[in-house]
Amino acid sequence: MAQADKKLLDQINYPEDLKKISEDDLIQVCSELRQEIIEQVSNNPGHFGASLGVVELTVALHYVLNTPYDNLVWDVGHQAYGHKILTGRKDVFHTNRQFKGISGFPNRQESEYDSFTVGHSSTSISAALGMAVAAQLNGETDRKTVAVIGDGSMTAGLAFEGLNNAAGNNADLLVILNDNNMAIDPNTGGLNNYLLDITTSQTYNKVKNDVWRLLGKFNRINPNTQKLFQKVENGVKTILLKQSNLFEALNFRYFGPVDGHDVNHMVKVLSDLQKIPGPKILHCITKKGKGFKQAEIDQTYWHAPGKFDKETGEIIQSKDNGPQAPKFQDVFGETLVDLAKMNDKIVGITPAMPTGSSMNKLMEAMPERAFDVGIAEQHAVTFSGGLAAQGKIPFCAIYSSFMQRAYDQVIHDVALQGVNVVFCLDRGGLVGADGATHHGVYDLAFMRCVPNLTIAAPLNEIELRNLMFTAQQENMGAFSIRYPRGRGRIIDWKQEFEILPVGKGQKLKDGDDLAILSIGAIGTEAIDAIEELEKEGISIAHYDMRYLKPLDEELLHEVFSKHNNIITLEDGCIVGGLGSAVLEFMSDNGYQSRITRLGVPDKWVEQGTQQELYKECGYDKEGIIATVNKVLAKHTS
Amino acid sequence: MAQADKKLLDQINYPEDLKKISEDDLIQVCSELRQEIIEQVSNNPGHFGASLGVVELTVALHYVLNTPYDNLVWDVGHQAYGHKILTGRKDVFHTNRQFKGISGFPNRQESEYDSFTVGHSSTSISAALGMAVAAQLNGETDRKTVAVIGDGSMTAGLAFEGLNNAAGNNADLLVILNDNNMAIDPNTGGLNNYLLDITTSQTYNKVKNDVWRLLGKFNRINPNTQKLFQKVENGVKTILLKQSNLFEALNFRYFGPVDGHDVNHMVKVLSDLQKIPGPKILHCITKKGKGFKQAEIDQTYWHAPGKFDKETGEIIQSKDNGPQAPKFQDVFGETLVDLAKMNDKIVGITPAMPTGSSMNKLMEAMPERAFDVGIAEQHAVTFSGGLAAQGKIPFCAIYSSFMQRAYDQVIHDVALQGVNVVFCLDRGGLVGADGATHHGVYDLAFMRCVPNLTIAAPLNEIELRNLMFTAQQENMGAFSIRYPRGRGRIIDWKQEFEILPVGKGQKLKDGDDLAILSIGAIGTEAIDAIEELEKEGISIAHYDMRYLKPLDEELLHEVFSKHNNIITLEDGCIVGGLGSAVLEFMSDNGYQSRITRLGVPDKWVEQGTQQELYKECGYDKEGIIATVNKVLAKHTS
Repeated sequence: MAQADKKLLDQINYPEDLKKISEDDLIQVCSELRQEIIEQVSNNPGHFGASLGVVELTVALHYVLNTPYDNLVWDVGHQAYGHKILTGRKDVFHTNRQFKGISGFPNRQESEYDSFTVGHSSTSISAALGMAVAAQLNGETDRKTVAVIGDGSMTAGLAFEGLNNAAGNNADLLVILNDNNMAIDPNTGGLNNYLLDITTSQTYNKVKNDVWRLLGKFNRINPNTQKLFQKVENGVKTILLKQSNLFEALNFRYFGPVDGHDVNHMVKVLSDLQKIPGPKILHCITKKGKGFKQAEIDQTYWHAPGKFDKETGEIIQSKDNGPQAPKFQDVFGETLVDLAKMNDKIVGITPAMPTGSSMNKLMEAMPERAFDVGIAEQHAVTFSGGLAAQGKIPFCAIYSSFMQRAYDQVIHDVALQGVNVVFCLDRGGLVGADGATHHGVYDLAFMRCVPNLTIAAPLNEIELRNLMFTAQQENMGAFSIRYPRGRGRIIDWKQEFEILPVGKGQKLKDGDDLAILSIGAIGTEAIDAIEELEKEGISIAHYDMRYLKPLDEELLHEVFSKHNNIITLEDGCIVGGLGSAVLEFMSDNGYQSRITRLGVPDKWVEQGTQQELYKECGYDKEGIIATVNKVLAKHTS
Repeated sequence: MAQADKKLLDQINYPEDLKKISEDDLIQVCSELRQEIIEQVSNNPGHFGASLGVVELTVALHYVLNTPYDNLVWDVGHQAYGHKILTGRKDVFHTNRQFKGISGFPNRQESEYDSFTVGHSSTSISAALGMAVAAQLNGETDRKTVAVIGDGSMTAGLAFEGLNNAAGNNADLLVILNDNNMAIDPNTGGLNNYLLDITTSQTYNKVKNDVWRLLGKFNRINPNTQKLFQKVENGVKTILLKQSNLFEALNFRYFGPVDGHDVNHMVKVLSDLQKIPGPKILHCITKKGKGFKQAEIDQTYWHAPGKFDKETGEIIQSKDNGPQAPKFQDVFGETLVDLAKMNDKIVGITPAMPTGSSMNKLMEAMPERAFDVGIAEQHAVTFSGGLAAQGKIPFCAIYSSFMQRAYDQVIHDVALQGVNVVFCLDRGGLVGADGATHHGVYDLAFMRCVPNLTIAAPLNEIELRNLMFTAQQENMGAFSIRYPRGRGRIIDWKQEFEILPVGKGQKLKDGDDLAILSIGAIGTEAIDAIEELEKEGISIAHYDMRYLKPLDEELLHEVFSKHNNIITLEDGCIVGGLGSAVLEFMSDNGYQSRITRLGVPDKWVEQGTQQELYKECGYDKEGIIATVNKVLAKHTS
């Protein structure tokens, strides 16, 4: 065994180093790796509980597999910190999730050990099957492919599609079901109950084992009943072998459940499974937050806790600077409860984000009217369509980047139906530390081309509240409201409800030299920029469009009549968004002003703070000021 | 029993009429309804086999249910012709799928009996669950909700998400699994094998029944072994009751399989099931094409056969006008085989459309390199991403409107990975008779905002072939090629391969008065229009952009330098597509020409022939001519 603290992990930079460690020392390696994760994340916030839960699995996988030749695909990637530390990134791990640092998720561009870039859930089985089939076509019979997927991710349709297809294929694929009974919030649905069932000693496995054992005894009893026994035995065996298990029903060989925290047993099991060809699933039971007491107890909070004291587990609060403005998600959550009290048609739907979207507020207040459907964005939207077809008004809250997964359902099952569904797109715009997979920057473009869809984005908390109030009026049809990650600026946001007429924007400020047209909360950067510019004697008009669709044409006629220089500003891709909509209006109406479009350029944006990324994309306060100066230097209005 | 032919169906216009028929006469009603469908579809082409397969189910459902108060949701809707005929649309059924006629799919706007508008697959369980939950919240305990879904549709992730959620809910929902072992092509995957298994007498149900029966006998034998038996019995019962079935594993009560062509038995079973609360599944075995011999034999062909002789089953060929230009899908299919012979990295993927996309050509030529993944667009794309991550070059062929369902996967699992996947978007543009659910008109807009994605659309068959050749070069990254439903114009299309440089368009014709910029095969309408206009002395320049992304900026600089009047033409939505891209270019480069955008306006377009719909949208030959004249009347270039 290792002598001094940290000794073993200090010697390990790559899996080849890990493989030199004796099996007896693996427990120590796990303990050190866990401690390393705790230390790193306590200082530099990130995802926490998931990585703690798979420490032993991570060590066992890299001990047994021949990565990166063997392909290891982590689903979502919240749990891959141990993997990153063991695959060449221990020394840079302190830059995790930081601007220009390493990604918080596996990333193909970052390391050859990251065989697939992830972030969104439930992609691992399909991607890994692709890799396994490629190996098969190449005749690389020694090349292994492993997908590690949580039980939460397993509820998404994509995972089922992957399972169903892997089963219909004979490629050599191992799916490890990392079953901790959690997504970010507790897991839900039939599959979850099933997994609980088969991991409870009372049911599936104990019974299965008992029956096998008892069937064995039949052979030793009264020979007169042998024939009967034989029949029963054969029948039961058929059922047990062929249809007794959800995964076996799909033609996966099922192994487990095994204790995912017994690293030596995991090494043995994984070694054994390498010899078994075809699609197979290892059901592995782990505890999210394992080894850090508070994280084991409050798993949702400790999914991504922020800074904390690594000894006491005390959360390190940021300094008290007086009362804070609320998070937009909380404005959504509290307003939804207020509205639901007034309008009994309202129901709430979240795909596995009760805490992240603050739908938990409605779930607490009116549990019968709030639905956590698990990681299942497609279902969340079509289910909303069904509810609305019967007169309900569903508020379906989905992060912008996850709404990409329900795009067909938005078109086909809501907008085309002509029903009242309110989409609340949280995390619209650049989200910060989660990086390229999570930025919600395409929604304005991909929603804008859908007919019969109202698209709004509030400038501030009060407008979010009022847009929600507006959207739940009768016959509003499909209505999308997008708002950013993080906090607004208005502390006293709980004002009387007010209708914000559909398709009407607002003039925030008159001005002579140039007009800024903004949509959404990013407009506050423009407000700040304009304040600075005014000091220098530059007079800027500022219009908040509020609705991307329908556009406020009256307002735009005013703007184009008055201004030769116009800057559009959106916290979203400049391809196809507000800027394009304004250009379309200009063209259709024969205006010829000069338009400068500010927004996310046509490239991937990595992680950083939101402010760092706004700056990188040129639309923070300074970027806006610079753009105004550039435009005015070139052209006088 | 009924006396004369047609007598019974003549009396039935609505389900209330059907309910007056005696149970004994239902077989006759089914026979007449089947004949009605055969007569109608033989004259006026549409989907055929699916509706024949559910005649008895349709009659039984409307006999037992209290529609439209009870909600009946048909999945996809190919099978709903009988339903339409029984619910008020017998007299207008001859307008099925025609311009201004009735929709070929259930449609909320068309009838209150169509509780949900459908067209895309696998939505029914989620939508029906929404309806069932709404009824529950309203306290309408007598209100039933039924989803009818085929085994093909069941492979899609959305269906699984729906099942999983219905299972986690106690709402009163009946899912009827219409198991005919087919999508349009034969069904695939683990689930399909499983369903075959449980419907084969050798396995699940027979065994299950045998075991139950045998367990009963245990009680009558040697009392000395009773204790042992008891244990076995309890164990086996637990397994049989709780985990022996895929659906039961998910907490659905499972009934069946039953013969879906025994209408009287179906009436009884459906009546019985009405008394059982909660989520339940009825597994119903039917034959696609039932009652029309040819359709039973070649089920894929007879999914939608075109005109045929209702007596002989002979297909009525359109008159032979000499050699025909090929369908674009066949150019794709044959070219893919040619390319795969030259480049062993190429593989083909189709989500359940081997025949529709002509991927069947590669499946026949190189079965090991072609993958039909079932109705699973998300998996198709992520699986392609996995294959490409290992150096393969997947050609992933998906209809444009179904690509909406894999949007997140296009972004997250292909474009962001930086891998070489070639998306072949068949049925891009207005598709004709399938109508609003199937028009592939959003792809140019929703793909354009994705970084690192090359987007092309060929003018003709030769260009399709050459774009495919270009796309499979090394390091091309994510590459999308979209082409329309139907035939091109070039008979001699198998030319030598040629690279079409990425981001380069072509000048088809010089001209002085105005420039048309088109993308894709709709450019041929412009060619025809220009020919007409030239006769009147109007000189039009015509540029084929070929690539929507990256745009050919050199070409655009030429166009904007020369022309004050420009018309953009695309067979896609004018919001966010080529026209917007050209406006963005113009704005970014300080040009001020007048742009008129032709394309699909921002509204739903219903069914009709493609030509009728181009005309409706104003971009058939005549529409283009009218637009040119209008632009020139207003402004002289």
